[in-house]
Amino acid sequence: MFLKSQHLLGIRDLPSETISIILKTAVEFRKALESGIKKNPKLNGKTVINAFFEPSTRTRSSFEVAAKKLGADSINFNASTSSISKGESLKDTGLTLQAMRPDVLVLRHPHSGAPAYLSRYCNKTHIINGGDGINEHPTQALLDAMTILDHKKSLTGILVAIVGDIAHSRVARSNVLLLRKMGATVRVCGPPTLIPDGFEMIYGAKVTFNLSKALKDADVVMMLRTQWERQNEVYFPSIREYSRLFGLTEKKMKIAKRNAIVMHPGPINRGVEFDPQMADGHYSVILDQVSNGVALRMALLSLILGKEEGIKGS
Amino acid sequence: MFLKSQHLLGIRDLPSETISIILKTAVEFRKALESGIKKNPKLNGKTVINAFFEPSTRTRSSFEVAAKKLGADSINFNASTSSISKGESLKDTGLTLQAMRPDVLVLRHPHSGAPAYLSRYCNKTHIINGGDGINEHPTQALLDAMTILDHKKSLTGILVAIVGDIAHSRVARSNVLLLRKMGATVRVCGPPTLIPDGFEMIYGAKVTFNLSKALKDADVVMMLRTQWERQNEVYFPSIREYSRLFGLTEKKMKIAKRNAIVMHPGPINRGVEFDPQMADGHYSVILDQVSNGVALRMALLSLILGKEEGIKGS
Amino acid sequence: MFLKSQHLLGIRDLPSETISIILKTAVEFRKALESGIKKNPKLNGKTVINAFFEPSTRTRSSFEVAAKKLGADSINFNASTSSISKGESLKDTGLTLQAMRPDVLVLRHPHSGAPAYLSRYCNKTHIINGGDGINEHPTQALLDAMTILDHKKSLTGILVAIVGDIAHSRVARSNVLLLRKMGATVRVCGPPTLIPDGFEMIYGAKVTFNLSKALKDADVVMMLRTQWERQNEVYFPSIREYSRLFGLTEKKMKIAKRNAIVMHPGPINRGVEFDPQMADGHYSVILDQVSNGVALRMALLSLILGKEEGIKGS
Repeated sequence: MFLKSQHLLGIRDLPSETISIILKTAVEFRKALESGIKKNPKLNGKTVINAFFEPSTRTRSSFEVAAKKLGADSINFNASTSSISKGESLKDTGLTLQAMRPDVLVLRHPHSGAPAYLSRYCNKTHIINGGDGINEHPTQALLDAMTILDHKKSLTGILVAIVGDIAHSRVARSNVLLLRKMGATVRVCGPPTLIPDGFEMIYGAKVTFNLSKALKDADVVMMLRTQWERQNEVYFPSIREYSRLFGLTEKKMKIAKRNAIVMHPGPINRGVEFDPQMADGHYSVILDQVSNGVALRMALLSLILGKEEGIKGS
Repeated sequence: MFLKSQHLLGIRDLPSETISIILKTAVEFRKALESGIKKNPKLNGKTVINAFFEPSTRTRSSFEVAAKKLGADSINFNASTSSISKGESLKDTGLTLQAMRPDVLVLRHPHSGAPAYLSRYCNKTHIINGGDGINEHPTQALLDAMTILDHKKSLTGILVAIVGDIAHSRVARSNVLLLRKMGATVRVCGPPTLIPDGFEMIYGAKVTFNLSKALKDADVVMMLRTQWERQNEVYFPSIREYSRLFGLTEKKMKIAKRNAIVMHPGPINRGVEFDPQMADGHYSVILDQVSNGVALRMALLSLILGKEEGIKGS
Repeated sequence: MFLKSQHLLGIRDLPSETISIILKTAVEFRKALESGIKKNPKLNGKTVINAFFEPSTRTRSSFEVAAKKLGADSINFNASTSSISKGESLKDTGLTLQAMRPDVLVLRHPHSGAPAYLSRYCNKTHIINGGDGINEHPTQALLDAMTILDHKKSLTGILVAIVGDIAHSRVARSNVLLLRKMGATVRVCGPPTLIPDGFEMIYGAKVTFNLSKALKDADVVMMLRTQWERQNEVYFPSIREYSRLFGLTEKKMKIAKRNAIVMHPGPINRGVEFDPQMADGHYSVILDQVSNGVALRMALLSLILGKEEGIKGS
């Protein structure tokens, strides 16, 4: 087996060597996609169930495209149209889905720790965490790392600023864990109400409440989505104030390094996290993140399920 | 054609010989799945439309996995995102779906008799009843029989206790019909308000309102889901009282035969039908039911659509 | 490339020669389907994303069946379960979907012009308009033309009456454009409140408010769905009055030509646009429209994505 654990629950559990192999394999898959090799039958006969308990565009579709491009069958299980409305527990839903013998179960859930909880009971399938509460979103951090490496020689030694609602962001947590593991320096920035006490001590990311300080000499600026649906607006007085203090503008971007890139996990709130045009600027690699997401998930499925490492063996 | 009728509307229409062939073929498919033969191209080019007018985890996903493992295309049609919201009649929706030339139309509908009604108009496809109102759920009864036969030598002569909301349960009706056809003795048990008058006369199952009497010497205990969403709570005073009188406990289970098995069609309401731990106990075959469901539906699709009987000819 | 433009935004942009090739290719695909050739691997490895921002039975399922019968992967993106609920703009959703490298993006959207708007930004995929607001529904008009040609020698010179809510109907607009382009004469008929001022001048279809005048000597009677969900009922006093004045009956049908056919894009409101039985009468070709829809969309996907024209090259 490729991973030490049977499941991919978070960046927390991945050694840096494993991360490097995943990123390298993903680049190979992207090359194959770009050269017109549109289908790779490596996972023919395998079944991937996407169990999503929260709405999602990118992650679910990305896993579905990745699975199908590898010849696997992809089954969507949406909580809203399912037995959840009949009061079934997560454990029982998980065991039921496992009993259909899927090779991989991609789980997105609003509760932090849901994939880890389910992994205690499901030992006949591979659980991939597709985002759990405010805990982790490991495939997002992996595709982000892949995208950074398209523009920077190495993750080691670079300076990454993560800006926004740190407290409620699984993307921030997975990225801090991965980037620090690979030798990057990470600053997190946001209003004091949206950065948890002790974050610096626990995660080793420098905390600042001032956007200019966060951007100073940054190689990468990673803006987070302001997740209005997860929070009461009591965290700060108004969107307008948030946008003025923490929104990215052309002018503020000059504080970062000359060739710095701007990232965002999407979906974007134009006019909140960004000046409306910033998302389309030359520093933006936001759509590359999405494209890389498909290749990255192909690599991950292939490495977890394939007999050989990488795509060479197919 | 394998079935006498073009459609599978209920256990009511199936001769016992046909049931035996389906069960035997399902066991062959399960063996193939277990031995790692993950895909069988037998139904390559066939199309299965899953038309579900009620929420479902198990049945829809199970049919989808089964169809895909046989190489068929599977199309999901969910009533909530469909033209039903534009006021189209069931007949017109059915004829429209048929006009797209699916080979099989799996229909789940809240109205008893909906598949039978549609079968009068759709003679160019095979309708499989995926559960209709309180009438029948034939594939559930078939997978239940398959699961019983994993533990008991024969259905003939065994004693099965079905416990719960008999009145609103299509699972109970299909199981009583199948089990009696195959020579089993069936007792149904529940509060008097949840067993219809005349059930004993119509279905030939012994009725009792006392759980201990129902369990006495039973080979199989089949618990039903308390379908709170289908009923007003006026049927009995409280869930607590229901659970105390009709919920299964370790202690009550001792009344049944020593090697009796416990079944449940899912989704489970832990703490209502069962002591919370009962569903995980050694007598529980609940997850086997789910696994068998995939193999059973593969067998059914294969027998209905394949030129040869069984999987040998592929 | 088969189409001059990379996208299929409307009938407006299609030369009559292109329309003829699509219709001819669709007939070939239908023949193949009818002769039992159920799968054509021509588009193996291609990906079609169905992005539907409105409920739909026919169009989405039809595209999905068509894509799968050609061996392509089909991914469904439903607005209700997606990031739209997180406030993402159409442009950003479109660019995100494009970044996953689909070969075709089928777009249905409640806003007129949405596909044209998105086409300005998406130049790495083919957008097919699956119906946009009250503007166009080009694949519907193409399958309607295909169905008419099953019964009439040519579109040139025939007389088509389109009856109903012309103002809110993209089906009417696409059909008028196609039929006039191919040499047919078109009459539109409905209550004065449901035919926009200037329709005759802009679209070249003769306007009448009297059903009998519209039907006089018609070769084809195309009834539209009364789209109650799109309009306030202030357009006319009551459904009953609408039905009495503009609903089709056996008696009124006698005014049309002897061998006239009756069409409807579905879903049908029985008892409103029709006498309840009219939709099943011998003149009705409504279900043929649905069947032709699959073949037509196979032809379109194949012509847009295939290297060779038609199905011969496969």
